[in-house]
Amino acid sequence: MSSSPRLVEVRQNVLKQNDLLARALRRRFADAGVFVVSLVSTPGAGKTALLECTLKQMRANGLQVAALVGDLATENDARRLARSAAPVKQIVTGTICHLDADMVQQALDDWRLADLELLFIENVGNLVCPSSYDLGENMRFVLMSVTEGEDKPLKYPTIFNTADVALITKMDLAEAVEFDLEAARENIQAVRPGMKTIELSVKTGLGMDQYFEFLSAKAEKRLVGLERGT
Amino acid sequence: MSSSPRLVEVRQNVLKQNDLLARALRRRFADAGVFVVSLVSTPGAGKTALLECTLKQMRANGLQVAALVGDLATENDARRLARSAAPVKQIVTGTICHLDADMVQQALDDWRLADLELLFIENVGNLVCPSSYDLGENMRFVLMSVTEGEDKPLKYPTIFNTADVALITKMDLAEAVEFDLEAARENIQAVRPGMKTIELSVKTGLGMDQYFEFLSAKAEKRLVGLERGT
Repeated sequence: MSSSPRLVEVRQNVLKQNDLLARALRRRFADAGVFVVSLVSTPGAGKTALLECTLKQMRANGLQVAALVGDLATENDARRLARSAAPVKQIVTGTICHLDADMVQQALDDWRLADLELLFIENVGNLVCPSSYDLGENMRFVLMSVTEGEDKPLKYPTIFNTADVALITKMDLAEAVEFDLEAARENIQAVRPGMKTIELSVKTGLGMDQYFEFLSAKAEKRLVGLERGT
Repeated sequence: MSSSPRLVEVRQNVLKQNDLLARALRRRFADAGVFVVSLVSTPGAGKTALLECTLKQMRANGLQVAALVGDLATENDARRLARSAAPVKQIVTGTICHLDADMVQQALDDWRLADLELLFIENVGNLVCPSSYDLGENMRFVLMSVTEGEDKPLKYPTIFNTADVALITKMDLAEAVEFDLEAARENIQAVRPGMKTIELSVKTGLGMDQYFEFLSAKAEKRLVGLERGT
């Protein structure tokens, strides 16, 4: 039923349309010289906490940063992130389980992209649906918290395959939940060999230096590249 | 784009088809005298741990129990649950973000329902998509773990609205994550006034008596009702 030919066909058309829009967005981001990072995870893996910390740090580093945050309902995340003083906009999706390129495009409508250097897009909390939708981002982070267990890469392989970096969050709780870091690393590598993985805790600061160094290096390389027109 | 008229129409047809199948399943369950409970939550909220414990306890109580477990990939959960010695079948959904009535029907194909008293259906870990799909169950539990934060009912209201009972899991971690139980309860009641809520920890046993009493009472009432033909 879920795989009836008509539904598959419509879904393919929607995805094709999304890919075209995402490609146009990517070009727009490149022209404006903005580096775009998206975050995907289950609800409650710590996307907003990490993003709040990231926006503050990047602003402290003198970078022009902004964020779009997706949720089915509420503007709580945008309010929370606004404390960083960076421009933040909430995308409320209603019953839709993921962001798509069109939603991103519309949310950016009244922003001057050329004023930004870094844009973060926090997707709806969902380990399935966001994997199919390109948002025109330069890099996709998938977060998994230690409380979810080590097996999530094996159970939700597609989202790990479409992401560039895996962030293992809430490491401060690793001992309390008897998290097996080696098993988690193995499972990530089994699904996506060579995947960059960073373990961190926003609460204790563990791994945050490594995270910021990685992010800054990637963004800088890209920004420098953009200035050079490459 | 995601709300193009054609996609909405196809989606409505799929849901209508699902509702018809679910209604037929519900009748079949009633005729066979089996009480059906489904579990929904994010990935890693503890559905499988709770189910493993539940199957063991229900078998110890002399009840004929079985389970279907949905996942995008792997048969890990079915293997884990099989340790309870109850009949367990894995439904692998591929890239589909929820179970539907057709998948349940097909999975039950070679089981004699009349031999069962209680059937559990563990949905794919997802707080969005499963809400639209009736599986013919008698009761739906939505699990939220303390590690996800108190705001999940506000952010994912539909899944709470389609569930009958909210289970707050991993209460043993409540202190470590500074979980605000009162705020969580208020948020659940704001979304679904009067919703039955049970706080529990499979690890420490907290709240498990209350959970089993509630489940047994519901199931028994239903089973007695079925025997009476009501």
